[in-house]
Amino acid sequence: MSPIELNKRQEEILGIVKENGPITGEQIAERLHLTRSTLRPDLAILTMAGFLDARPRVGYFYSGKKTGQAVTDSMMNMKVRDFQSIPIVVTENMMVYDAICHMFLEDVGTLFVVDKNAYLTGALSRKDLLRTSLGNKELNKIPVHIIMTRMPNITYCFKHDSLIHAAKKLIDKQIDALPIVKEHPDGYEVIGRITKTNITGAFLSLAENHDL
Amino acid sequence: MSPIELNKRQEEILGIVKENGPITGEQIAERLHLTRSTLRPDLAILTMAGFLDARPRVGYFYSGKKTGQAVTDSMMNMKVRDFQSIPIVVTENMMVYDAICHMFLEDVGTLFVVDKNAYLTGALSRKDLLRTSLGNKELNKIPVHIIMTRMPNITYCFKHDSLIHAAKKLIDKQIDALPIVKEHPDGYEVIGRITKTNITGAFLSLAENHDL
Repeated sequence: MSPIELNKRQEEILGIVKENGPITGEQIAERLHLTRSTLRPDLAILTMAGFLDARPRVGYFYSGKKTGQAVTDSMMNMKVRDFQSIPIVVTENMMVYDAICHMFLEDVGTLFVVDKNAYLTGALSRKDLLRTSLGNKELNKIPVHIIMTRMPNITYCFKHDSLIHAAKKLIDKQIDALPIVKEHPDGYEVIGRITKTNITGAFLSLAENHDL
Repeated sequence: MSPIELNKRQEEILGIVKENGPITGEQIAERLHLTRSTLRPDLAILTMAGFLDARPRVGYFYSGKKTGQAVTDSMMNMKVRDFQSIPIVVTENMMVYDAICHMFLEDVGTLFVVDKNAYLTGALSRKDLLRTSLGNKELNKIPVHIIMTRMPNITYCFKHDSLIHAAKKLIDKQIDALPIVKEHPDGYEVIGRITKTNITGAFLSLAENHDL
């Protein structure tokens, strides 16, 4: 992807239009002590790249909208921390019945399980809980650590990771949520949660921010 | 968003570079019977907009990559039908126990329920089934039509809808999946399924297709 780099004169034009738009090509040329025809290629580039909008008999104005290029930039700059949800954690000895109630109460699809030091040890999805509830009548006698997916088989991410990277993990591992963790000498603290809902929201925000 | 519309000469240049690149500015000018300086603005526009790449002492070549503008276009052109999954449907009289087994067997998060004419009448999420399995011991005696979310409270979409539109419905209604339906005089036939997994996949494909 070759980024659009503006030259000094194009930056100047952009500045003038930002402050004074709508403004005609002649007026911009006057301010820069240049002829209209000298400016024509620069104005064409700025308009075609979406930095400026031009209206007949009105002049140039700053588009305000982000350009197509900016959609790309937006995607690359999306970080996990900007789209995360609050993580819901339970302890290893919580009973499956209570975990299911907790899941409904908090309205989440995935619970993270932590040990007595509050470090991540496991994860519980709706699917895990549904599977257990099918076969077992005594959900209030089975602690979650028996049925949870266990470290090191938990896929996690960090708050500075790109959202694209997190989305790739969700798809590759076929899971609904990743814990966002902070590394400590003895384990991982769960500081957030990123889900397919968050990614869907990000997809939507990309469209809305760029007026699609 | 102002789309980049190429003029006839720019299209010609693009065609020449596509077929003959890498090619120098002088060689392009020669083929068009124009001077190098006449072409300079067009080449600048094509390069800055990302259609062409230029390397010193090599010349211009077709970028092959989609441009930033193209990310925008890609998003707007993403249709539900291009990212859909196969719908898993069950009949209204299937027992909840069997529906849960079916959900695991097919590895989906949402089942759609149809009547004897195969028209959509309801939807069952993992959440619905988990809630029912908590309170009830006799899952093999409760038919799904008792617990399903029922028409007209099902949010659906059509295969030609934009993916952005479908993503918005998923977020607004706080659901995991939409049935893709085909309208008939007496009801809706379920012809596909679009989920947050599909949207996450689309988000990722947007990044991958544009080399982010």
